[in-house]
Amino acid sequence: MALFNGTFDAIILNLSNGNKEKLREIFDEIHPYDQAQILMELSTEHRRLLADFLTDEEMAEIIQELSIEQQKLIIDELGIERYSKIIAEMPSDDAADLLADLDEVRLNQVLDLMDDKEEADLRELMEYPENTAGGLMTTEYIVLPENFTADEAIKKLRQLAPDAETVYYLYIIDSEGRLRGVLSLRDLIIASPETKIHEIMYERVVSVPIDMDQEEVAKLIEKYDFLAVPVIDKQQRLVGIITVDDAMDVLAEEASEDIAKLGGIGGDPGVLDINVKAIDAAKRRIPWLALLLCIGFFSGNIIAQFEDTLNKLVALAFFIPVIAGMAGNTGTQSLAIVVRGLATGQFAGRNILKLIKREAGVGLIIGTTNGILISIIAALWQNNIILGFVIGLALWITLIVATLAGTIIPLILVRLKIDPAVASGPFITTINDILGLTIYFTVANAFMSYLL
Amino acid sequence: MALFNGTFDAIILNLSNGNKEKLREIFDEIHPYDQAQILMELSTEHRRLLADFLTDEEMAEIIQELSIEQQKLIIDELGIERYSKIIAEMPSDDAADLLADLDEVRLNQVLDLMDDKEEADLRELMEYPENTAGGLMTTEYIVLPENFTADEAIKKLRQLAPDAETVYYLYIIDSEGRLRGVLSLRDLIIASPETKIHEIMYERVVSVPIDMDQEEVAKLIEKYDFLAVPVIDKQQRLVGIITVDDAMDVLAEEASEDIAKLGGIGGDPGVLDINVKAIDAAKRRIPWLALLLCIGFFSGNIIAQFEDTLNKLVALAFFIPVIAGMAGNTGTQSLAIVVRGLATGQFAGRNILKLIKREAGVGLIIGTTNGILISIIAALWQNNIILGFVIGLALWITLIVATLAGTIIPLILVRLKIDPAVASGPFITTINDILGLTIYFTVANAFMSYLL
Repeated sequence: MALFNGTFDAIILNLSNGNKEKLREIFDEIHPYDQAQILMELSTEHRRLLADFLTDEEMAEIIQELSIEQQKLIIDELGIERYSKIIAEMPSDDAADLLADLDEVRLNQVLDLMDDKEEADLRELMEYPENTAGGLMTTEYIVLPENFTADEAIKKLRQLAPDAETVYYLYIIDSEGRLRGVLSLRDLIIASPETKIHEIMYERVVSVPIDMDQEEVAKLIEKYDFLAVPVIDKQQRLVGIITVDDAMDVLAEEASEDIAKLGGIGGDPGVLDINVKAIDAAKRRIPWLALLLCIGFFSGNIIAQFEDTLNKLVALAFFIPVIAGMAGNTGTQSLAIVVRGLATGQFAGRNILKLIKREAGVGLIIGTTNGILISIIAALWQNNIILGFVIGLALWITLIVATLAGTIIPLILVRLKIDPAVASGPFITTINDILGLTIYFTVANAFMSYLL
Repeated sequence: MALFNGTFDAIILNLSNGNKEKLREIFDEIHPYDQAQILMELSTEHRRLLADFLTDEEMAEIIQELSIEQQKLIIDELGIERYSKIIAEMPSDDAADLLADLDEVRLNQVLDLMDDKEEADLRELMEYPENTAGGLMTTEYIVLPENFTADEAIKKLRQLAPDAETVYYLYIIDSEGRLRGVLSLRDLIIASPETKIHEIMYERVVSVPIDMDQEEVAKLIEKYDFLAVPVIDKQQRLVGIITVDDAMDVLAEEASEDIAKLGGIGGDPGVLDINVKAIDAAKRRIPWLALLLCIGFFSGNIIAQFEDTLNKLVALAFFIPVIAGMAGNTGTQSLAIVVRGLATGQFAGRNILKLIKREAGVGLIIGTTNGILISIIAALWQNNIILGFVIGLALWITLIVATLAGTIIPLILVRLKIDPAVASGPFITTINDILGLTIYFTVANAFMSYLL
């Protein structure tokens, strides 16, 4: 908040002494995002004063910038009636997202205070699953009939602009509500006033179905550099639009999910929130760790089965961490490539095979180089050339297998529609530990007579 | 390419029989992104025919959608003169990025074929480091003097719109070129024609300095939901704008970097490209793995120092993988939270301390639960209650330490401005292996008299 210290103090001062003119002057110069930060930093009393001072429209802009938890606090402080008025001023997509998190009683109270049209719109939006195009879209867009002229369109735009989420794309529909075309404000401005809209509109509109996954929608907007994309229902009717700012939020959320996944803390982005309490953070991680602990006992069991081998040559134990560690490391490297490939949609059918072949090649190369390296180090350290050879051979096989396991296991899990969060870094590491130790002790056992 | 099969075949047919009218009809209906995909799928001969058929402007739009490697192929096929003409039609930011990857000789050839103004503009843009606001910005934006009326502004806009990267924000500068305000096309459209621009422009413009890191710029655009942000030089003069589509690309690139980092394959996003050859992919991963291998020997060395302990009770070796594995797993979980927190800019000063405290709490909780769990399993498996206790105690300490190491080590590396790619998943895992094994054997050694 360092940036706003002066402003912040000035706001508190003018809230306290009720100088509304000065307050208005200061507040109007601040972006809603920063207004929201300031609102949350205030004491409850000052927050109430500020909320009373601001219009419903201003409060709506501010509330959109807050997290769900912060929004709920605001609701409790303002009361349901004021809140309902503020909600009515919000873009419908944000309003629906917020309402979806309310309990049934409050939700009905809020909706009952709205007029029937607004209530129906919001209830419909809330029907769509949150992670689909329907859940992401807004219903505030501008529609034009195709027989308008450019001049008529601009006049209409002047009326509608204050309520629309974006005015930069205008949508043209037929009498059935089906999407016929799109016109950018850029093209409308350039057109001569008497041109008919249907002459300048773009007819091959890229649209998305209402049940499309939100990540697909976000990638499409990114790919085509759109500012917004229209959403259509099964009857090809225009039902909403999704804007680029919401697409950016989806992509950021998805990146968080991938990181959480790779870190082995599940796909819920909430796990990355540093504001979550220790006990809640631990609760989310413990099931994972307990599972990995149990799987880890397989590694222990493998070593136990080679107890005789180990008893004969305890030095074999010295290489357990490095063999298991390297198996985990190479597997994690391959996994990172698969996770990001899935996120960016690089994997069409034949690309998967190409990747597997590529990673097999990578495994061979890194197995050979690291195998030679470890042979030399082990032989010098233990002053035993045969031991060096055995360790090198074991690592060579291990790295080839581990690289492939790190590539193929997550791909299989995704194909089986098992939550890809399962294919986490720690999971792959644990599996590769087991593979690596099995290979290691099998090789060591085979060469035991030369080792002693 | 399944979507385009019909279109694709039709294009080849009409290229071959030279039916330009039909070709034009088909091609105009395709988005430049898809046109680019089609261009790259064609044979060299067909690609040349298509390039001859398309205007420089159309080729410029297509070339922007290609990767640098694909773009170079196109240059070689088209020759330097055509290429120079195409470059002249590109937005200046994309042109500069592309030219920056050319060798000196070709670069000079291309620039010599341009007029002096274009050459100067591009040379200037190329001066700015690629990962700063200067490297990301375009110089095609619309500037208005503040004494214009809304009507005059719209007229001016009609002239300038075809060349500008965005027409949705208009920038107002004074006679020195300093940024005075910004006006959205939305507000301009709503305003009555005779309103003076300076009455409706927004004066507290959020702008970015030319040397700001590109990730900071992208986060700012995301935070404020901007469609573009102006870039200013040290004298407060407007020198360019950065648009939301470029910001999205930066955020996607950054997410890839984080994944690569966490996966232990360095921070270069190229490592995630599945089109890179096996040998090149291996070359990038080997230095990392070789380093981890050498560090891994520390773990081996710790075990070697406890050789006597191990000789007395070989069963201690059974728990090496599970102790080391769990240390790695918890460390990776904490690391994931730090990596994402750094990416989303959650870490102001006091948040770091808050996170460390939180993770200490998490470590205590997961250490206790997993310690109890492993005690029970180990005691039952080896039929030895004291061994169970020792393993549980060792894991308890290990998990607390490993959680903190996974949090603090990456934070320290970042603070020391050491490439944060070093704080990778495999690196933390390897460090935590060493910590875990040291703790394990120290605890086992201390209780050795009770174990035998």
